[in-house]
Amino acid sequence: MINVSSAQSLLSHRQQFPALANKAYFNYGGQGPLPQAALEAIHQTYDYIQSIGPFGLEVNRWVTQEVKKTREAIASELGVSPDTITITENVTVGCNIPLWGMDWQAGDHVLLSDCEHPGVIATLQEIQRRFGIEVSTFELMDTLNQGDPVAAVTKHLRSNTRLVVLSHILWNTGQVLPLAEIAASVRNYYNNSKPAKILVDAAQSVGVLPLNLSQLGIDFYAFTGHKWWCGSEGVGGLYVKPDSENQASLNPTFIGWRSIIMNQSGFPAGWQQDGRRFEVATSAVPLYAGLRSAIATHQQWGTNQERYQQILDLSKYLWQKLTQLPEVNCLKTSPPESGLVSFQIQDKSHAKLVQFLESQKILIRQIRDPDCVRASVHYLTLPSEIDQLVVAIQQYCSQKISN
Amino acid sequence: MINVSSAQSLLSHRQQFPALANKAYFNYGGQGPLPQAALEAIHQTYDYIQSIGPFGLEVNRWVTQEVKKTREAIASELGVSPDTITITENVTVGCNIPLWGMDWQAGDHVLLSDCEHPGVIATLQEIQRRFGIEVSTFELMDTLNQGDPVAAVTKHLRSNTRLVVLSHILWNTGQVLPLAEIAASVRNYYNNSKPAKILVDAAQSVGVLPLNLSQLGIDFYAFTGHKWWCGSEGVGGLYVKPDSENQASLNPTFIGWRSIIMNQSGFPAGWQQDGRRFEVATSAVPLYAGLRSAIATHQQWGTNQERYQQILDLSKYLWQKLTQLPEVNCLKTSPPESGLVSFQIQDKSHAKLVQFLESQKILIRQIRDPDCVRASVHYLTLPSEIDQLVVAIQQYCSQKISN
Repeated sequence: MINVSSAQSLLSHRQQFPALANKAYFNYGGQGPLPQAALEAIHQTYDYIQSIGPFGLEVNRWVTQEVKKTREAIASELGVSPDTITITENVTVGCNIPLWGMDWQAGDHVLLSDCEHPGVIATLQEIQRRFGIEVSTFELMDTLNQGDPVAAVTKHLRSNTRLVVLSHILWNTGQVLPLAEIAASVRNYYNNSKPAKILVDAAQSVGVLPLNLSQLGIDFYAFTGHKWWCGSEGVGGLYVKPDSENQASLNPTFIGWRSIIMNQSGFPAGWQQDGRRFEVATSAVPLYAGLRSAIATHQQWGTNQERYQQILDLSKYLWQKLTQLPEVNCLKTSPPESGLVSFQIQDKSHAKLVQFLESQKILIRQIRDPDCVRASVHYLTLPSEIDQLVVAIQQYCSQKISN
Repeated sequence: MINVSSAQSLLSHRQQFPALANKAYFNYGGQGPLPQAALEAIHQTYDYIQSIGPFGLEVNRWVTQEVKKTREAIASELGVSPDTITITENVTVGCNIPLWGMDWQAGDHVLLSDCEHPGVIATLQEIQRRFGIEVSTFELMDTLNQGDPVAAVTKHLRSNTRLVVLSHILWNTGQVLPLAEIAASVRNYYNNSKPAKILVDAAQSVGVLPLNLSQLGIDFYAFTGHKWWCGSEGVGGLYVKPDSENQASLNPTFIGWRSIIMNQSGFPAGWQQDGRRFEVATSAVPLYAGLRSAIATHQQWGTNQERYQQILDLSKYLWQKLTQLPEVNCLKTSPPESGLVSFQIQDKSHAKLVQFLESQKILIRQIRDPDCVRASVHYLTLPSEIDQLVVAIQQYCSQKISN
């Protein structure tokens, strides 16, 4: 049930997002539209840096504060302490940090879900080659509509499994994994011995789910600002659970002046003791102001919980309409638990559907595995956009020539 | 000898750099001022991406072309083929790629100059710890005014030396290393056996020296766009010499969708065969337009050779004035070969000098090793700024209270 008054309040809220003015947008999971305030924050930050710098004592102090404020804004959204947050260029770097930072021994085992992003798969293939570890894949895709994802993970754990890699929201099917239950089950499996660590690709969950990471029991949570948070590309991050084990055993790999503390002569004298330990060197600080501004823009509309509820209402609305189309097969047989609605079209090319829709100013994307089309629905989505998408899909399906 | 007419033409050229309007700027080696055209290119790119995207078929094709054009613009300045260029977030990531990408064996030796940046030193310390290699430092700082940097490197080579790490222009003293001679000497040392590879930190040389990397004989050349090129922070790069040895033995470490080619199902099916192999994932593409625009702005004023000559004229002018001050000791005993002019003040605090100068809107930086102050002189620098700096240093030195 779509709340009409909130949909109407959205009409004015949406005017802050220039990208939404001239199209029906269903690619939030690819990249979110920048709010005008974020664009202006980026521009103003560039101007300010040029005004007092770009390099000197005053501007360098100011940049340090900007980074600190950004770490705090991110941490606040994730329900964790700022010192657990590493700021990265993107979610993939956030995944690479724990993947390369663990002290791998030949024979170690990594358990990887069958719904992970190709960048993460390729990283693990290279780590496998270099360190002689074993990587095996377990089937999560099959648990979308039936079966138990907790059992799907747990039954493949081994005594030598040192890391489990999965996503909070699967980027292809939109399934939401019960992370707290999975983490508890993993800990339980190892009983009193050292449990496997859990790395979560949070590309599709940050900005969607209300989060309190400190309650999930996972070790590493990598995310980006440029998808559901609608910040600029080029800023993401990593949460590392602050326990003595991670502090002792997770080492920085790519290293620069941000990672280290220096002595009086400017030589390395140890690691930073917080999330900066895994940061490298100079980044585009104006983008940080953009991300903070984007997060603040969402907060103006509603709480995390209110926005998530709106996403659920809207994705259910789309899902229901799609299930009524005879040519469409929604991957999920019940309403989505995220903003991702993936579906297949009988006897038609998904690639050509995406092209056809883009020609009508409806932006959506194709997914290769499983072979489907993915619509991303945010709290910003209008019911009228969903209607427009469904009509266009019907129009495509009714074309005489089968593509 | 300063060319007065070119100094006057600079007055109008400089008006394109907002940061230069309200201060005397001597921190190009820290960060260069963005030209207005680069700021506008960044803003316009953001607007364009929002207009056609931010995510879809058309915008993704356009982004691919933007990345290609940026790789070409960088390659053209370095005298190399675009497929040798990896775009990174900064110079430090560019150094980390070969440092972590080599197939280290316990007992391998790395030879590091005593003038490298702490980020690179810390990276090698961690690689030493993880792989049991040996890192030793050789003395380059002592060759600033006498001695032979080629011999300083060569005499420390060993049969098990696999990598030599040094800078093209030393960030602390401004010394320019004869890279082609060093590379030839290293090759000569190994005669018919496999020579040690050479990684060059080019943070201070790109945008200063006219470059033709393909003639230098070095293997890896890491640089940034935000210093002497005056692009935005957040974009740098790495050149990898395109030989079969590097192609076969240098592996990607941090990996993402940009590193790989994918099969029809979207799974990793191999590495990109050009510089993209070492790129990771989503970056802020608008900054790429800013860098191209900054490079074009410099070209409007003069060729690389003309700009380098102007830098030499201006840094000589500063050096000569400083050598006339009794309280000042220039590290170099002959005119600089770069835009970096490092000096010491007798019996006074360098930190307080930098603070004093910044209070007078003169931006300069302190260096810890050797303990000194570093002025960066670009082709953009005015003789009047240099005069202003020298007067202010005199004023500081004449203060009664010794700090």
